[in-house]
Amino acid sequence: MLSDSIIKELVQALGKENVIIEQEELAAYAYDATADISKVLPEVVVTPTSTEQVQEVVKIAARHRIPVSTRGSGTNLSGGTVPINKGIVMVMVKMNKILEIDAENLTATVQPGVIIQDLNDAVAQYGLIYPPDPGTVATATMGGSVAECSGGLRGLKYGVTKHYVMGLEVVLANGKVMRCGGKTVKNVTAYDMVKLFVGSEGTLGIITEIIVKLIPAPEARKSALAIFKSIDDAARAITGIISNKVIPATLEIMDNVTIKTVENYARVGLPTDAEAVLLIEVDGIPEVVEKEAEVVVRVCKENNGELKIAESAEERDELWQARRAALPALAQVSPTTVLEDATVPRSKIPDMLKALRDIADKYQLTIGTFGHAGDGNLHPTILTDENNKEEMERVHKAVDEIFDVALKLGGTLSGEHGVGIAKQKYLINEFGEAGVEALKAVKKALDPENILNPGKIVSL
Amino acid sequence: MLSDSIIKELVQALGKENVIIEQEELAAYAYDATADISKVLPEVVVTPTSTEQVQEVVKIAARHRIPVSTRGSGTNLSGGTVPINKGIVMVMVKMNKILEIDAENLTATVQPGVIIQDLNDAVAQYGLIYPPDPGTVATATMGGSVAECSGGLRGLKYGVTKHYVMGLEVVLANGKVMRCGGKTVKNVTAYDMVKLFVGSEGTLGIITEIIVKLIPAPEARKSALAIFKSIDDAARAITGIISNKVIPATLEIMDNVTIKTVENYARVGLPTDAEAVLLIEVDGIPEVVEKEAEVVVRVCKENNGELKIAESAEERDELWQARRAALPALAQVSPTTVLEDATVPRSKIPDMLKALRDIADKYQLTIGTFGHAGDGNLHPTILTDENNKEEMERVHKAVDEIFDVALKLGGTLSGEHGVGIAKQKYLINEFGEAGVEALKAVKKALDPENILNPGKIVSL
Repeated sequence: MLSDSIIKELVQALGKENVIIEQEELAAYAYDATADISKVLPEVVVTPTSTEQVQEVVKIAARHRIPVSTRGSGTNLSGGTVPINKGIVMVMVKMNKILEIDAENLTATVQPGVIIQDLNDAVAQYGLIYPPDPGTVATATMGGSVAECSGGLRGLKYGVTKHYVMGLEVVLANGKVMRCGGKTVKNVTAYDMVKLFVGSEGTLGIITEIIVKLIPAPEARKSALAIFKSIDDAARAITGIISNKVIPATLEIMDNVTIKTVENYARVGLPTDAEAVLLIEVDGIPEVVEKEAEVVVRVCKENNGELKIAESAEERDELWQARRAALPALAQVSPTTVLEDATVPRSKIPDMLKALRDIADKYQLTIGTFGHAGDGNLHPTILTDENNKEEMERVHKAVDEIFDVALKLGGTLSGEHGVGIAKQKYLINEFGEAGVEALKAVKKALDPENILNPGKIVSL
Repeated sequence: MLSDSIIKELVQALGKENVIIEQEELAAYAYDATADISKVLPEVVVTPTSTEQVQEVVKIAARHRIPVSTRGSGTNLSGGTVPINKGIVMVMVKMNKILEIDAENLTATVQPGVIIQDLNDAVAQYGLIYPPDPGTVATATMGGSVAECSGGLRGLKYGVTKHYVMGLEVVLANGKVMRCGGKTVKNVTAYDMVKLFVGSEGTLGIITEIIVKLIPAPEARKSALAIFKSIDDAARAITGIISNKVIPATLEIMDNVTIKTVENYARVGLPTDAEAVLLIEVDGIPEVVEKEAEVVVRVCKENNGELKIAESAEERDELWQARRAALPALAQVSPTTVLEDATVPRSKIPDMLKALRDIADKYQLTIGTFGHAGDGNLHPTILTDENNKEEMERVHKAVDEIFDVALKLGGTLSGEHGVGIAKQKYLINEFGEAGVEALKAVKKALDPENILNPGKIVSL
């Protein structure tokens, strides 16, 4: 427990209303959306309302060497927001103002607690969008998604969070404020500190303001469902579309396990006998959309796909509801859902899909796979029960093997969920010893006392 | 001078043919393309042919604490490649193989010595392009352009070098090799080390292999010259085009000083009485190009612009030759050309242009301004003579003021030329004390002995 005097310092700095010490309330901050990791109760939760208050918290933490784990809505999927070393959990949801929408420069400036969807709603009236589009867009905060470098469904054409963050205000581990980047499209002044903080999972600094790039909303879009009897055909269609130089906004896959589960859950009319479906959306100006849609249809047909094109906004919404239902549907059929995001070069999708089937067979597990096929970013989802010790052992072996295969195929441990605590033990396989040393050196440089979300990504 | 025994070590590691100690040859590595900085002769120049040889050089340098300044073709514009602390200059031009073009994953893997244009020529047969397009594309190396995060003419629509670097092999200051990133579109595994090395100007590690993203070449393009009697009208046209949601591939400006100089130099038929011209190119599929060209024409006309549209490939080439002649033409009319790249948010272009005119008047200097107007990335170019002490004093004051104004307008010190030594003294104005401390901490973390291009960006 933190001493009364430290709590007093926090209350003095933030006001009573921003310091939570009641056990039952603390319990809500002991976990995030990640399965199969331990819950850890923080000693205190603070909800700062300004950059100055964040600075005060960090200064108090630094003085007393107390860990500070920062979070937004806690939709994290790699254990990044679990306060494994206890201490302070800093919740940023009260800093939730959209500070500016600058339609002339195509930027928005927001506080970290702004919900991603709220930003998109606000910029829509200017005909603009903020493209990063994680599944949790309606609950996740901008701060959390910048700290995790969220991906999402539109990554293929539009890129991910790091491609949209132009400037940051960050409270450093010493309590000082640093600003980097800004509203200029080009900026090569010194090291790219903006990109260093994006995806740093709260371990290098605390993000208190974010300038993001916006883009014009596409004028038109067209969605289709392509149904495949063979998953290999589906895989060939994916690479075929892109090698025909069409980059869809979205190119998603669901395998048979996922299809059946989603259909059972949501009754959206998915073909439960298909080995795989692709959900594809092209967007842009109407002429481009027509042209690209034609290519998509042709390539899918060439690979024995059966096409259903959404003819109305309602039909389109239904399609995407089906896709967005994948994770909740899978999560509902088993007590524990181990969701991974090993990612491979696009051309290796067929190999990865095959490997996942082999791994499921080998360890006699049910693995539903869906995800961002166009990015090579699959979400193999193991349906299990964390109370079943024997099965969990097989799950852990399967997960080890999934990462092994991904790296062998030239891939990466995480396409969009981050390292957190869930993927730490694999880090050496991707970065090597020299690489992990370099990561630790960077962490130590910016947080020498190891107070910012300690034990995440790399452990000092 | 380095001792004979150190030279011997280098010769042993690299072979005699890769170690240069002749004074007259060393002289060629004492400077780069930056004006108004001192020349410094290196003590030895090495030309490694493999990653292992780079490692050997760095290990020898580390053992004896000798500075290593790495360079490609030396087209740097901020003094980044001048060996201000003497020691070793490592020239990467012999590592010039294109290792792979992966058309399926839209990537290329190259050694650092590959010339940018050579990569573009090689990928053209696959219908692909590598978009970053600095003015020096025909001579600059990939390694240099990654280390500097080059910009160029296509930055507005296509982004700059950092948007295309997906993976790197880097020799660290301890001589160990680290690989980061790869061929996956998404990658959030630990800190974004790739982006940290991009633009780090050889101060954090030595890049020995680069994986870049390629994109499909645009099917069609259309170029136009828009002539304006008033520079304010030109500025309004720039923001008008973009707020009409057209993002041209290229949107360049030349002011009257530049127009007259280029016309005098290249006789391409530019209107010497215009206050400014815009050179605009839209590209994409033909339907989009037509639509966007119409918007461009309309907006320019609304702002009193007179349009000349390139009707053939020859006319297009002529237009762009005129633009590419800007710097050489300006450089030719005066003994010394001080070229800056202060950059502002796009909407502040009119303010910046006005400020530049005021500064030229105040210090009685000739400043030709051209550059990437769509990016807010202007190149005010002061025509002067470094032997004229009195005038150079005014030049320095003018440069100070240019950076002052850029930062006041929410801009940055460098859009694409880097900090090197030329902009170090201004760094504190952009990053603040806490920021500069953080930059130094990062440098120290990855190069604790300060041997990699010491004295650039930040001085430890």
